[in-house]
Amino acid sequence: MSVLDRLEVPIVLAPLAGGPSTPELAAAVSEGGGLGFLAAGYLTAAATRERIAALRELTARPYGLNLFVPGAPSDPASYGDYARRVAAEREGAGEPRFEDDDWAAKLALVEDVAPPVVSFTFGCPSAGEIARVRAAGSEAWVTVTSPQEAETALAAGADGLAVQGSEAGGHRGGFTDAPDVALFSLLPLLQLIAADTDKPLVAAGGIATGGAVAAALCAGASAAAVGTAFLRAREAGTPAAHREALATDRPTGFTRAFTGRLARGIRNRFMDEHPDAPLAYPEIHHLTSPIRRAAREAGDGESINLWAGEAHALAEERPAAEILAGLATGAREALARAERRLSEGAP
Amino acid sequence: MSVLDRLEVPIVLAPLAGGPSTPELAAAVSEGGGLGFLAAGYLTAAATRERIAALRELTARPYGLNLFVPGAPSDPASYGDYARRVAAEREGAGEPRFEDDDWAAKLALVEDVAPPVVSFTFGCPSAGEIARVRAAGSEAWVTVTSPQEAETALAAGADGLAVQGSEAGGHRGGFTDAPDVALFSLLPLLQLIAADTDKPLVAAGGIATGGAVAAALCAGASAAAVGTAFLRAREAGTPAAHREALATDRPTGFTRAFTGRLARGIRNRFMDEHPDAPLAYPEIHHLTSPIRRAAREAGDGESINLWAGEAHALAEERPAAEILAGLATGAREALARAERRLSEGAP
Repeated sequence: MSVLDRLEVPIVLAPLAGGPSTPELAAAVSEGGGLGFLAAGYLTAAATRERIAALRELTARPYGLNLFVPGAPSDPASYGDYARRVAAEREGAGEPRFEDDDWAAKLALVEDVAPPVVSFTFGCPSAGEIARVRAAGSEAWVTVTSPQEAETALAAGADGLAVQGSEAGGHRGGFTDAPDVALFSLLPLLQLIAADTDKPLVAAGGIATGGAVAAALCAGASAAAVGTAFLRAREAGTPAAHREALATDRPTGFTRAFTGRLARGIRNRFMDEHPDAPLAYPEIHHLTSPIRRAAREAGDGESINLWAGEAHALAEERPAAEILAGLATGAREALARAERRLSEGAP
Repeated sequence: MSVLDRLEVPIVLAPLAGGPSTPELAAAVSEGGGLGFLAAGYLTAAATRERIAALRELTARPYGLNLFVPGAPSDPASYGDYARRVAAEREGAGEPRFEDDDWAAKLALVEDVAPPVVSFTFGCPSAGEIARVRAAGSEAWVTVTSPQEAETALAAGADGLAVQGSEAGGHRGGFTDAPDVALFSLLPLLQLIAADTDKPLVAAGGIATGGAVAAALCAGASAAAVGTAFLRAREAGTPAAHREALATDRPTGFTRAFTGRLARGIRNRFMDEHPDAPLAYPEIHHLTSPIRRAAREAGDGESINLWAGEAHALAEERPAAEILAGLATGAREALARAERRLSEGAP
């Protein structure tokens, strides 16, 4: 039995690394009957431990912790031109560098704290690493973006899969950033993966209404992961310029300009000026990080990563508990409507 | 009240122009309680009339007719290099040329025959043209791929919208082929459009199982359009090499190589060899048409357009009536499962 089976509301907070994730937001979702999530990405293990403690002050209910799986350093020749160009264009660019997001210390933290769920992004941990997480008492989920990745994750021992469609905001969370890899939208991806496994699937990407929560359940998911729809919640750490952009119907697109890894955000000047940014994560993240920090503080939404899923215009500025309750009610209503629709014409 | 409200099964056959569409396939879907569709695209008005007559021999139930809305000729300078390259590489290339798919004659045919539904692809007819179709007694549907297109189509008087997500197989059916236009996956697109209108929406793209049919209804659609899942039906006119490719899990991708207009197909050699084909429809269609005809006859799946949605691996080789019945049963089961899932945790 998965943690998911004990939720009052089959809704999981997407991790939202890099600012929006706060203990307050995660606690509000867990207290509301969903599964709150903390993002460990970009934090040290020590800072992650503090966030978990803060969350535990706010709720005793189940929660999840999301970790970035480290990749390999990129050849400096592959990103040198881009780094020089950005440094020439903008003041305060950082030094591109590789690091592993404090991986070993975070795995040790997980073994110590045993969050009810530990999910992984940007790669599949080894079978041994997954076994360690499970031995500590956590469920291990792996983020996948294709049927092949799902197969790999299940073979490595994953308890569940976060199934991320191409409509999702933020980074593609799969194992590879190769540019010729086929992207899957959520509905086809869910159907393909659900045809091959009975493990719980959490559907992520473009889910902004109760109707879409119900849709994800119908297409084979045990729960819906909701990210962008919580970015304007009072409890989220989303910067002001980001909140403003979310409230418009500006188009989204994919970019590697900010981090060196493909991510979906609201199109802005920095993205449009750098359409050919290289694959080099986290090197490019460190290159642009100080630029983005300064822009956030200056309220300059044209120079920061405005991560957002395709349905961002439907995100509402409300307390997280209200957003969650609205999604749950909407899901029930949508199912009842669909039920009527299906029986309506029946002879 | 829309034709959709009278269907026993809220499933619409996607038009499938260019070979797969047959009166037998459309009749099987209409007889099974769904809405069969005939594709007029690439046919003369006279040939379209014959297909309608053939369909009428097979069923008296409602059906739809899909028309291509003509665009404008492209500047020969924009496609000359590509045309010369293809002609040098392959024997029997055709002459690139513009034509309007017999538009005026087909509109006159529609006024004469008054199909229960007339749907439009590749553009929004004028308000006057939509009014003519409606005056004849047909419902007028317009294919849209963005919230903006939906607004335009409703303003022009459309009775309903075919909402096509980026996971759909075949041509993108929206108004523009501009390369910088944001693509929307089906779930976010449905939510965004349903938030703005009460007109019936038919959801298209990646719907290969009953679960996805139910998902589409939950997310705001009145019916699900199913295309790829019928391509292996006995009654479909799908070429043998295309059927073979559909039965694999080969990846899909977008291409303009075959027709000069963006379309999703299973990746093959011709697509991969021509990643930068120009926007010039139907000029490029006529360039490659004889090449494709010869390849189809030779069973060469690497030189023909293998149109397919992202979930094509789930398509089954069965009679259309069985595919339709399976989708309807699966939709009911998925709704019941989702209902249990939602009430399970409820306090």
